[in-house]
Amino acid sequence: MAHEFRMQRRVAYAETDAAGIAHHTHFFLYMEEAEHAFIRSLGLSIFSEEGDRVVSWPRVSCSFDFDQPLRYDDAFDVCLSVERVGDKSVTYRVEIEKDGEIVATGRSTTVCCALLPDGSIESVAIPDAFRSQLEVSPPAQGS
Amino acid sequence: MAHEFRMQRRVAYAETDAAGIAHHTHFFLYMEEAEHAFIRSLGLSIFSEEGDRVVSWPRVSCSFDFDQPLRYDDAFDVCLSVERVGDKSVTYRVEIEKDGEIVATGRSTTVCCALLPDGSIESVAIPDAFRSQLEVSPPAQGS
Amino acid sequence: MAHEFRMQRRVAYAETDAAGIAHHTHFFLYMEEAEHAFIRSLGLSIFSEEGDRVVSWPRVSCSFDFDQPLRYDDAFDVCLSVERVGDKSVTYRVEIEKDGEIVATGRSTTVCCALLPDGSIESVAIPDAFRSQLEVSPPAQGS
Amino acid sequence: MAHEFRMQRRVAYAETDAAGIAHHTHFFLYMEEAEHAFIRSLGLSIFSEEGDRVVSWPRVSCSFDFDQPLRYDDAFDVCLSVERVGDKSVTYRVEIEKDGEIVATGRSTTVCCALLPDGSIESVAIPDAFRSQLEVSPPAQGS
Repeated sequence: MAHEFRMQRRVAYAETDAAGIAHHTHFFLYMEEAEHAFIRSLGLSIFSEEGDRVVSWPRVSCSFDFDQPLRYDDAFDVCLSVERVGDKSVTYRVEIEKDGEIVATGRSTTVCCALLPDGSIESVAIPDAFRSQLEVSPPAQGS
Repeated sequence: MAHEFRMQRRVAYAETDAAGIAHHTHFFLYMEEAEHAFIRSLGLSIFSEEGDRVVSWPRVSCSFDFDQPLRYDDAFDVCLSVERVGDKSVTYRVEIEKDGEIVATGRSTTVCCALLPDGSIESVAIPDAFRSQLEVSPPAQGS
Repeated sequence: MAHEFRMQRRVAYAETDAAGIAHHTHFFLYMEEAEHAFIRSLGLSIFSEEGDRVVSWPRVSCSFDFDQPLRYDDAFDVCLSVERVGDKSVTYRVEIEKDGEIVATGRSTTVCCALLPDGSIESVAIPDAFRSQLEVSPPAQGS
Repeated sequence: MAHEFRMQRRVAYAETDAAGIAHHTHFFLYMEEAEHAFIRSLGLSIFSEEGDRVVSWPRVSCSFDFDQPLRYDDAFDVCLSVERVGDKSVTYRVEIEKDGEIVATGRSTTVCCALLPDGSIESVAIPDAFRSQLEVSPPAQGS
């Protein structure tokens, strides 16, 4: 039961480095952008205000393995799947594909948190509006 | 009556681009870092909580002219001066120097603002703790 | 004779700051992305290899005036126009629009340069493939 | 036989996000900055030109586990150790410490590569100047 979502993107010039390739930190931005676009496609948001508190999804871990470099203006896909839905956390897996070939593989775990008025952050149970949709596979997009 | 402050920095690898030079957007980060280090050197902060509101300093304008490129690991100075203190705004000017030569010149105007609990942003008079120090020239650092 | 190009974009979460608004440096990235998307729409590239040299377009100046903040996930347009085509440089003007209202206005001047094998950078005349298209107004996109 | 290196840093304002904490991607920049400062402390550089080729160290994998958030202006240490020196690769481990407490733990593997004039990238044996130093523990700095 994979939840799959596909986002298309290009390497921006500002994302390249002196070796002429996309700097590795930008892959983590690509992964986050795909997560957020996926949540938006469900009609939800990863940053919402509920009364005097904000609900957001900070990351507790993330990783990437890089197989091939990307260069300026390369078009690529970020293929995101929901790997696990816990009580308070969601784990995503992404494959970065260029011309149908995987160039990098990432994984991240985000935790549903309330940001309280005093600035403290507290993990909370995933709201039903998220849980009900994360546990039902949406139709794959563009693949 | 110039207020001068000098910050030393190196070009990080992640700040370079495919042309092998520091990407222009990072100069705006260098300018902001110098502004904040200057304010910190006065015993103040550009982001502080006062009761249920936050006082911060969003930018209303900024610009840079670039004369020479910087490359990975280049050491440079950011020489900041306070150009004008208005009722609610401060204008800074920076010169980026490498080996005693100016490689870029920037200017920015920031406005003292209260971020209210409802998310709105409202410009406010510069607090006395800032004004009294911004209008007295601190001793130049390292120059 | 304005050359206009319109790019749609959203504020990514990573582009926000502790005041809850898009950090000002990202507006310079939005401007650059629009410039590059415009050049790509002409069938050209701002970074190309010609024999043993690279032709690129470093910036000699850029500026922004900010009127209204943007927040996470805000959709906005970057409306780019070619303001001036010189012998070696192009000046662009952009308006950032949200819900039909201008929230920021920027300007940048880029210079056509050859990056030589020894690492030096030399300004060169704008290639005819660029000049002929920059001086003929393309049809506006989406406006 | 740990090789340890310690770098001090503060969270820059531009590194915060709308939740008021340092965005996770910046931890990867902190890790890279510490790696490069460590290599610089050995009298070497992670980006050098040798004849008509460039020797650099692209990353093949990296990861972070986040325990506690960092906020604007928080002072922290990046404690880097060399975990493994292979034929062509080096694996680093970093602990991000604030007030003596670990707030995040990262790991990265970089591979020594030649960037050839035709743009291709080829892994190569670690040069002796690097190997001889990476395999001898330097004195720990500041700890």
